Amino acid sequence: MSTTATNDTWVHDVTLTAPSLQDNTADAERLGDALAAALGVDHVDRDFDLLVGLPEQLRQWDYRARCVCIDDHGRGRLVALCDPRSAENPLGLAVDLGTTRLVIRLLDLVSGESLGEVAFDNPQLEVGPDILTRIHFADTDGGAAHLAQLVVGGLNDAIGRLCAAQSRVREDIYLVAIAGNTAMTHLLLGLETRWIIREPYIPVTNRPGLVRADRMGLRVARGASCYVFPNVGSYFGGDLLAGILFSGIAEAEQPALLVDVGTNAEVVLGNRDWLIACAGAAGPALEGGVTKMGMMAGPGAIDRVTMDPDTRALHLHTIDDEPPRGICGSGLIDLAAALFLSGRVDIRGKLVPDRCGAQLTEADDMHQLVLVPAAESASGVDLTLKQADLDSLLRSKAAMYTILRTVTHYVGVGFEDLAAFYVAGTFGIYIDPRAAITIGMLPDLPLPTYQSLGNSSLGGATLALTSRARFAQIDALRGRITYLELNVNSEFMNRFSAAKFLPHTDPSRFPSVHVLVD
Amino acid sequence: MSTTATNDTWVHDVTLTAPSLQDNTADAERLGDALAAALGVDHVDRDFDLLVGLPEQLRQWDYRARCVCIDDHGRGRLVALCDPRSAENPLGLAVDLGTTRLVIRLLDLVSGESLGEVAFDNPQLEVGPDILTRIHFADTDGGAAHLAQLVVGGLNDAIGRLCAAQSRVREDIYLVAIAGNTAMTHLLLGLETRWIIREPYIPVTNRPGLVRADRMGLRVARGASCYVFPNVGSYFGGDLLAGILFSGIAEAEQPALLVDVGTNAEVVLGNRDWLIACAGAAGPALEGGVTKMGMMAGPGAIDRVTMDPDTRALHLHTIDDEPPRGICGSGLIDLAAALFLSGRVDIRGKLVPDRCGAQLTEADDMHQLVLVPAAESASGVDLTLKQADLDSLLRSKAAMYTILRTVTHYVGVGFEDLAAFYVAGTFGIYIDPRAAITIGMLPDLPLPTYQSLGNSSLGGATLALTSRARFAQIDALRGRITYLELNVNSEFMNRFSAAKFLPHTDPSRFPSVHVLVD
Repeated sequence: MSTTATNDTWVHDVTLTAPSLQDNTADAERLGDALAAALGVDHVDRDFDLLVGLPEQLRQWDYRARCVCIDDHGRGRLVALCDPRSAENPLGLAVDLGTTRLVIRLLDLVSGESLGEVAFDNPQLEVGPDILTRIHFADTDGGAAHLAQLVVGGLNDAIGRLCAAQSRVREDIYLVAIAGNTAMTHLLLGLETRWIIREPYIPVTNRPGLVRADRMGLRVARGASCYVFPNVGSYFGGDLLAGILFSGIAEAEQPALLVDVGTNAEVVLGNRDWLIACAGAAGPALEGGVTKMGMMAGPGAIDRVTMDPDTRALHLHTIDDEPPRGICGSGLIDLAAALFLSGRVDIRGKLVPDRCGAQLTEADDMHQLVLVPAAESASGVDLTLKQADLDSLLRSKAAMYTILRTVTHYVGVGFEDLAAFYVAGTFGIYIDPRAAITIGMLPDLPLPTYQSLGNSSLGGATLALTSRARFAQIDALRGRITYLELNVNSEFMNRFSAAKFLPHTDPSRFPSVHVLVD
Repeated sequence: MSTTATNDTWVHDVTLTAPSLQDNTADAERLGDALAAALGVDHVDRDFDLLVGLPEQLRQWDYRARCVCIDDHGRGRLVALCDPRSAENPLGLAVDLGTTRLVIRLLDLVSGESLGEVAFDNPQLEVGPDILTRIHFADTDGGAAHLAQLVVGGLNDAIGRLCAAQSRVREDIYLVAIAGNTAMTHLLLGLETRWIIREPYIPVTNRPGLVRADRMGLRVARGASCYVFPNVGSYFGGDLLAGILFSGIAEAEQPALLVDVGTNAEVVLGNRDWLIACAGAAGPALEGGVTKMGMMAGPGAIDRVTMDPDTRALHLHTIDDEPPRGICGSGLIDLAAALFLSGRVDIRGKLVPDRCGAQLTEADDMHQLVLVPAAESASGVDLTLKQADLDSLLRSKAAMYTILRTVTHYVGVGFEDLAAFYVAGTFGIYIDPRAAITIGMLPDLPLPTYQSLGNSSLGGATLALTSRARFAQIDALRGRITYLELNVNSEFMNRFSAAKFLPHTDPSRFPSVHVLVD
């Protein structure tokens, strides 16, 4: 029996010896043995459906076959057989299953190449923008099924668009890898979510593992297999595990930090020897969830604020250079930093009337700063930063810093020991670490320490489909993670209170900031 | 985590610790871990469908569960969860998938007790009595699907009758074990059979393994798992493997022989150290396939023939004491033995006119013996044994003996070394070893050596469902079998020719017979 050389992909071309009176092994076992040898495993599982038509296929293909495989808890699994004479390589689909937005990426499973991406809003937004609303809706009659249908329908549409753009067909997609948070993953699979949000916060499963795509309603190749990233708990999802995989922090000698910021800030600290994770509510301020002016990153969002060093005038940049519609997290951080550095906001985060000048107005007994006058805004009304927005941001940034302090303190690692500080997701792409340091949200580290990971969930899902070796790390990674439950105890609250200043009550922690402050 | 004590059944009651903030393992993994510990395995697979509803079940059942499991290539597989408070035990169904007749047996999976059986004719008989006809039919458009539907429909009907008789419901059947020959198994599963009958005789699969019962169309519990016994090749089926398991020959120190006689004689010789198997065409004579008078064992079949030692008058016994309709294999052997011992048939197997008297007539230039005059037969016509019938029997018995000689000679075991000679199936139940020895079909061994196994396929299928330890032997058993291809070479033909005498050309081989011959 001859096989192709060992390769790191999930596609294996095998050549079988033709059967004879001397070797009357059945077709399925002849194939299974060859594939097990190629994969270096003892046994290869396969779905019963693959047996139907197998004899004709093998004889037509002259006892050669292109096998699409996947790992099933350490055992090989044959997912599909393809015509080895075909010029088109089998495809994979990586999915970043976000609460707000989904991104899918089409992959060539042989070359590992990314062929294209499509992003779209999570169709479950029509039920509710936040997970909690959706979970409550899932508990109503037919609710869970409706939510699953929404997101599966959205995926099916997007797959169609993605394949059309690449002149490929969805029936060539044999493997799907999905990374999402625990609740989103459960909602996609139609699993109960009611216990995820009730103490002691128990998911239905930590390891959804392989699910048949047709069982989920995904319209791809018949018999295609869908790998759903495992979670560590209700608040530590497969998206973060994919991020850890993608970041490589679990293989490095020096410790590094990975932060994924959304409504929750998820933090992983570790190196090749240990991994510790925690998550905490970072508040809505960083996700555009502040009062009127806040918005998600998108066209017209103020994503970057710079200040003229001489005039201290603020320059607002919007995404796609459209008229300003609101401000997103990165813009808000930039803005707060600029206001603080120019003395328009004090160390308690309060607007200082003397310094703000004519831009300062008052509404509902509260100070506010007019950033964009009505005439220049997309909506035709003033865009204002309210004191309440600043208060909200202050709580978010203080929570973030406190979580980072707590987790590093727990393992006795100083911020200065970090070889890298990875910031995942959209937040990581847009945020200016300098500004985040200025307001004391991120520790005062050399700027090159901060690295944007981009879409690390999608990156991890991609790795799972393009590298057997990286896929093999996932379960071990999951097992290595120590989850630190953030007890909101008096120590935590003291740290939090201390961090609610700009940048901090302890100026020695932020030497690079204080030299700049007016 | 506490579990019930290790038991040898497939039903395990597990008690989980309730989840807490200190142990937030998900429901599925909590269950999986407890079950893995109970089964003594590393990992338990489960179907995705079992996750749906799991949280409510576990909470309703107070974190206890009754798990129905099965082994999947050395790994545990959770098949179903049952309410641990139910008074009704989960059920299993053992199936003997015969070419002509099927027998199903209902089992209590906890006690291992057999609750009842139903036997019925294989509905595929309407397509053709023999496998070859069915295989050709399967190759026509829609033929394979029709054949599968026939047998599955028959099973579903029989399951209904069997359950009704036991006041149970089919939805309580969680495990099914099916033992049948390779072709019948393939036809049941809708797999291609065309290569089974074409050189080099390759089945689609040697190990169908576990197939979802609903995928096969079997109406039992949702998600029930069906274990299909593996085969060693196209002509060595799972029925024989089940028979080996049931016989216990693979565990004994002394070698023993197992024979299953149908159109083919299947022979296994071995002990705990080695197992050798072969199969050969035994001809239709032993299955009622002789001219006009032959029939399968059934009401009105002459199944036993005795001879008055003084008068040499033949006494014919029929099944159910009904008027004689024909003669089955065991009756034919008895008859031939009696005729030989009384000199009415010579050592060449020819009717001797001088000895037969008035019972001898002639038709179509051929001698025949009137066994039952028209007035006494069920059909109202004479039942006659033709010379051609005797010739056919002679070829069958010579083939049988030659196969036995060849396989024992191959491993250097004498017949006298056999601790036991098991005869399986209906043939084993009805055959009189004394008569079979007399005509030289079976070797001249002490009569207690011959043991009827009864329905060994059904027995093996029963063991697979009632004992984890016995189930675990199946794959190893299959791997241990050396299949001896019977080359019809000159040595075989010489042996065959020598065996075409009554009892044999070499009288020293049958000392117990020659003392009886007139």
